[in-house]
Formats: sequence, C-alpha cells, structure tokens
Amino acid sequence: MSWLPTSVAALVTADDRLARATWSRLAEPGDGTASDLIGQLGAGPALDQVLRGDRKDHDKFRAREAALDPRPGLDLLRRLGGRLVCPGDPEWPAGLDVLAAPPICLWVRGPLDLGESGERSVSIVGSRAATAYGQDVTYALAEGCAERGFTVVSGAALGIDGCAHAAALRVGGRTVGVLAGGVDRPYPRANEELIARIAESGALLSEVPPGSAPMRNRFIQRNRMIATISGGTVVVEAAIRSGALNTARTAAANGRPVGAVPGPVTSYVSGGCHQIIREGWAVAVTDAAEVADLVGRIGFDLAPRPAAPVRDDWDDLDEVERRVLEALPKQRGSVPEKVAAVAGLDADTVRSALGRLALRNLALRNGSGWRRGVLPPADG
Amino acid sequence: MSWLPTSVAALVTADDRLARATWSRLAEPGDGTASDLIGQLGAGPALDQVLRGDRKDHDKFRAREAALDPRPGLDLLRRLGGRLVCPGDPEWPAGLDVLAAPPICLWVRGPLDLGESGERSVSIVGSRAATAYGQDVTYALAEGCAERGFTVVSGAALGIDGCAHAAALRVGGRTVGVLAGGVDRPYPRANEELIARIAESGALLSEVPPGSAPMRNRFIQRNRMIATISGGTVVVEAAIRSGALNTARTAAANGRPVGAVPGPVTSYVSGGCHQIIREGWAVAVTDAAEVADLVGRIGFDLAPRPAAPVRDDWDDLDEVERRVLEALPKQRGSVPEKVAAVAGLDADTVRSALGRLALRNLALRNGSGWRRGVLPPADG
Repeated sequence: MSWLPTSVAALVTADDRLARATWSRLAEPGDGTASDLIGQLGAGPALDQVLRGDRKDHDKFRAREAALDPRPGLDLLRRLGGRLVCPGDPEWPAGLDVLAAPPICLWVRGPLDLGESGERSVSIVGSRAATAYGQDVTYALAEGCAERGFTVVSGAALGIDGCAHAAALRVGGRTVGVLAGGVDRPYPRANEELIARIAESGALLSEVPPGSAPMRNRFIQRNRMIATISGGTVVVEAAIRSGALNTARTAAANGRPVGAVPGPVTSYVSGGCHQIIREGWAVAVTDAAEVADLVGRIGFDLAPRPAAPVRDDWDDLDEVERRVLEALPKQRGSVPEKVAAVAGLDADTVRSALGRLALRNLALRNGSGWRRGVLPPADG
Repeated sequence: MSWLPTSVAALVTADDRLARATWSRLAEPGDGTASDLIGQLGAGPALDQVLRGDRKDHDKFRAREAALDPRPGLDLLRRLGGRLVCPGDPEWPAGLDVLAAPPICLWVRGPLDLGESGERSVSIVGSRAATAYGQDVTYALAEGCAERGFTVVSGAALGIDGCAHAAALRVGGRTVGVLAGGVDRPYPRANEELIARIAESGALLSEVPPGSAPMRNRFIQRNRMIATISGGTVVVEAAIRSGALNTARTAAANGRPVGAVPGPVTSYVSGGCHQIIREGWAVAVTDAAEVADLVGRIGFDLAPRPAAPVRDDWDDLDEVERRVLEALPKQRGSVPEKVAAVAGLDADTVRSALGRLALRNLALRNGSGWRRGVLPPADG
C-alpha cells in the first residue's frame, strides 16, 4: 500500500494494524458494510477495494478520503501514552467479537491491560439524571465489585456512570471508561478530571480516532461495547426507554447476565429497572455480593460456583416423610389410605406424616385428599 | 346431642353449624387432628367422639371442656350484628379449602358477603414498621385495586395492613379484615377506629370465637387465611423473615400469584420484598394496574386476559428477513452463503438482511458466521 509512510510503519507491527486505524477514520462505529468487507478480505485489501471506487455502496467511505491519513491520530495517541489494540492482539477483548459489527480497532489510553481486566468485569450503567439514592447505591456496588477484583466498566457519563468509575478508583480498583468520542476528548467536560484519573490508572477506550466528536450514533454504538466487553451489566437507575436500558438489552441479547437495582416505585429513574425485572430478563440486585454472584455465573469468572443448589427441604425430611411425599400426587388429591398403599406404610403413619409435611406446605389438602405442595424456595 | 339447648338451636340452621362453633372453642386454628376428625366424621359426631374421651390425642380438646358452650359467643356475635359462616354456606370462601387444616367456621362481622367479595380480591400485607414510602405506596396500590373492583384483604395490623384497609375505605371500596383474635376485640387498640369502620361497610372475620385473645400462634394461622382467601397476595414492605413473607410463602405454596413492591435497597423493610423477587416466586409490582394484572391471571378474575402476547418483532419483519431468521442456526454460526442456501435466497440478499436483523439483535455474528439472537422482550 503506497500511501503508508515508513515513519508510520515503524509505529505499528503490521499493515493490518495501520489499515484498521485508517478504517476507523472512514467507517462509523457499527458499520456493517465495513465489517463484512474486512471480515471477507482483511483490513488492507478491503481498504484497497474501497479506494478503487468500484462500488456505489462504498461512496460513504470515499466521502471521507481526505481524512484518510491515520498518522496525526496515531501521533497524538502516542503523545498521550496510548496504543492501538486490534483483533488478534493478546489484549483484544474477546467479548466484543459477539457483536454483528465489532469495533475495527480500539484506541486505548491508560495502563490497564484490556484482556486481563476483562476476565472478571462488570458494566455498571445508568441515568445521567441520577438521584442521590442512585449515586449512593452506585458507589456501594462499584466499590464492592472493585474490592472483589472485578473491573468496573462504564461510559464516563454524568450520573451513575461517573459514580461507578469514581467508586472503583476510590478503593484502588480497576476501571475502564468506554467513550463515544476520541480518547483525547474528555466528554462530558464536567467529568474531565475523572476521565483523566481513569486514564492514569485504568483504561479509556474508543473505536473512533483521537479528535472525533461524540455524536448521537456513536453513543448508541458505544453502548454495544459496554454491553459485551464485560461479563455482565448492572443498571442502577434508568428511566423507561433510556440508553442504559438499551445497553442492558444488548447485553441480554448476547447472553450476558443483566442485573437491575430496585428503587422507590415513585422514582422516575427506577422505572426502567423495575420494567426489566418484571419482564424477567434482569435480576434484581441489591448489593455487590449479589452482583458478583450474577456476573460470576457466566464463564467469565475464574472461580466457578457450585452447580444446583442443595434441596434443604428434602434433606430435612425423615425416611417416612420422604416416602409419603413421593407417594403424593402432584395434581388431584389422594386420600391417606391410598397414599399409604402407594408408600407402603400404614394409614395412621401416613396421616401423621401428612400433618408434619403440611406444616411446611409440602403436602396440601385438596378436598378430602392430599396433594404435593408447590414449594417456593426456603428462607435464606 | 344432649348438650344443645333449644335456645341455641333456634339461632342456627343445623347441628353442624353449632358443632362447628363449639369446635372453634376447643381447637386452636390450624389444628390438624380436629380438621381430620371433622373431615372424617362430620363436626357433630367428631365432637361426640372427643367428649367420650376414648383417645389420648384428644386430651387437648377436653382440657377446654369447661368452655364448651358456644351460646355466649353466638349471643355476643348476634348483638354485634355478626354471623357464623360455615363450609357449605354460599358465603363460605372456597379459597380456604386448599389449606391443610382449613378454618372450622368463621366468625364474621360486617355487611360484606365473603363469597361475592372474594371473587376479585387481593391481599395487601406488610411490615408493621412501615416507612412513609411504604405507607404512600400502600395507599396508592390499595386505592387503585379497590377502584378496579378488587376487595382488599389484610390483617388490620399497624403499618401496611392498616393503610391498605384505610385506602380501600377512603375510595368507598370493599375491604376484609382477617383477625387473629375475636371479632369483638379490636387489635391493635391503635387501630380500633379503623377496625370499627371495616365492620361498618366491609367484613371482619376470625376463626376464633368472640372474646378470644390474639396469641402468637393465632397470628401465624391468621396469615394462612389471608394468603388463601384472596386471588393473590402483594407484599409492600417486609423485612427478611417477617410474618408478611410467611403469608406470601403460603400464598405461593398454594398456587396463588404473589407480588412484591420494590423499594430502596438501603431500606431494611424492603429487604424481604427484594429477596422474594430475586428468588423468582414474587413478581415486582409498582402500581395498581400491575397488581390487577397479576392477581387477575389466576381463575379468580371475571375478565380473563388474552393468551400469549403477540410477537411484535416477528410482525415487523419482511418476508426476506423472516426467511433469513428462520434459516439461522441457534447455536453455532453459519456463513451467509450457507444461510442463503437454507433460505433459498442469494448471498447478497442474505448479507443485507443479516445487517438489518443485526441492528435489532435478531442476528448475531459468531466468528465468521451468524447465529440467531436471543431476543429479550421489546420496549413497551
């Protein structure tokens, strides 16, 4: 590729690397055409094809041809102590690969290794218009997660996002800020100092090159990264139809566990949390232990949990009670004499055991007979 | 039965009725021996057998032989304008029959017909130590339920229970107070005026005769009535291991829908609600419409709801997108060419449709291939 100057070639280890940096200047995040083309041909040859100008659906890329040169962005990134992370790099976050159009490359600042820090990680997101309650809960959750060794991922926005990062930093934990604009452009400006602190000890990443403005579409695409780069997503406060719910939806659609924090039903910004809990694809989480439990379930946690929970109720029963319970029909009732015949016990023994089982709702009267209880989980 | 004076016989329509009134003086609520004996022999003959004194396990009933005469209680009930409701009466609440040891009879005050009012009913229960938040939410829920024609059932206790009754009364709705002591004994005394108002327009009921004190065991047994007499139970605020959770557990164990109101995770009395939502046997409910939706599902509601929800997502797809979606494997990915072969479309058409499906998370990239997305429910 003739347009590759040697000075830039020295910065990167392969043509693919530089071609991807270039692609991130031409294609908007989430662009399916670019993603398909790179997937089919490789980043360099795909770029060559686009620049040849054969295809009408590539006009949108050629419209940005004037901005093709990736050197200024790479120079700036280097001055900021940053690096370009590409698919195939040990540091590449594998979680992103589930996306239909994964990032072509990541512009990264900060000392944190994205690969290592992603192994146990949780995205904590929510409303920019967070309440004092939401902020307090975010601090508690994010601190607890960070102290447990989870990397806290968020979007560096006002409200919940900012609190999540700040809490992780406060306890010396790991945190990753996923930005919609360039990593040289702290946004929102009110979080400028916080974003600088993330860059100092954690990582800031973006799929758009330095200098890029955070535009509406880029926030939506940024959310798909937050949703898939981590082991799971927790929404602390979110109004119905908010961006944070969109992040949660993308996480769930890609098989990631989703948690939501309950709040007052009178609070507008808890409405989205309650909605997704009701819909059944988010689990109600109330503290960091529950978040760790949720996110640790899916293959990302290094310490897998034991499989099925022990049936305490069954364990607490004696032999007679077990036989009676097993002899009980699940639907229609059966009289004690019949249960006795099935269980191979005498009727008086069965009646007495039924009384004990009934105290625990394991046996239920059904007219003149008895049936098995539908037992909800025990206290605990 | 020689011990039946004619003056009492004139009060009731059958020996069974009077025998049951007597039984409610001898046996504690929920007594399995009494329940079994009455179920096998009928209330009168069972009483005769107990009084003959043949069996050791009947000593506990004979210990109360001095209090056998039901006339003073029935006289008092009559003076209070009340009535004895027995199994077989049109007014008998059928829901109670699912209990292992259902009430032997109900001592009832107030004009409300228990049978009719039970058809669409909801129990709203919770902590005595309710917060201002819990009280506000209870008012909103109970008013909304009462306005929708639901009878509001509760335990007339301080806190959530009292608010539920008061709210139903405020909007002229129907309410039933289930008491642990006699219906002549308002308890707690702080709710004396409220309980009197329930007796004026709603119904107060108890399975223990007038004059009986509310004892610990009677509260637990009272809860099993609250749990089963209504179409479903909603817990507004409850600490972990509270009595209200016990009510909810009994409701769930007997196949009744259970709702719980989320609250601040920092609130002690929302802890039990969050617990049962997390455990999955309570649904998060945030307003009266959601409660009506929940409780109306089980055969108690006169207006059944439509069956399966419409799959909006599917309806929004065009013919090509549907064919591509159906051709996508659910687990491992398939390359567009293969999907095209399965769908009977050309590869370019498939690639374009995959892009559109991917935007909605209906198609997910899986390495070089594509698979079907796990779609969470849509907004709405």
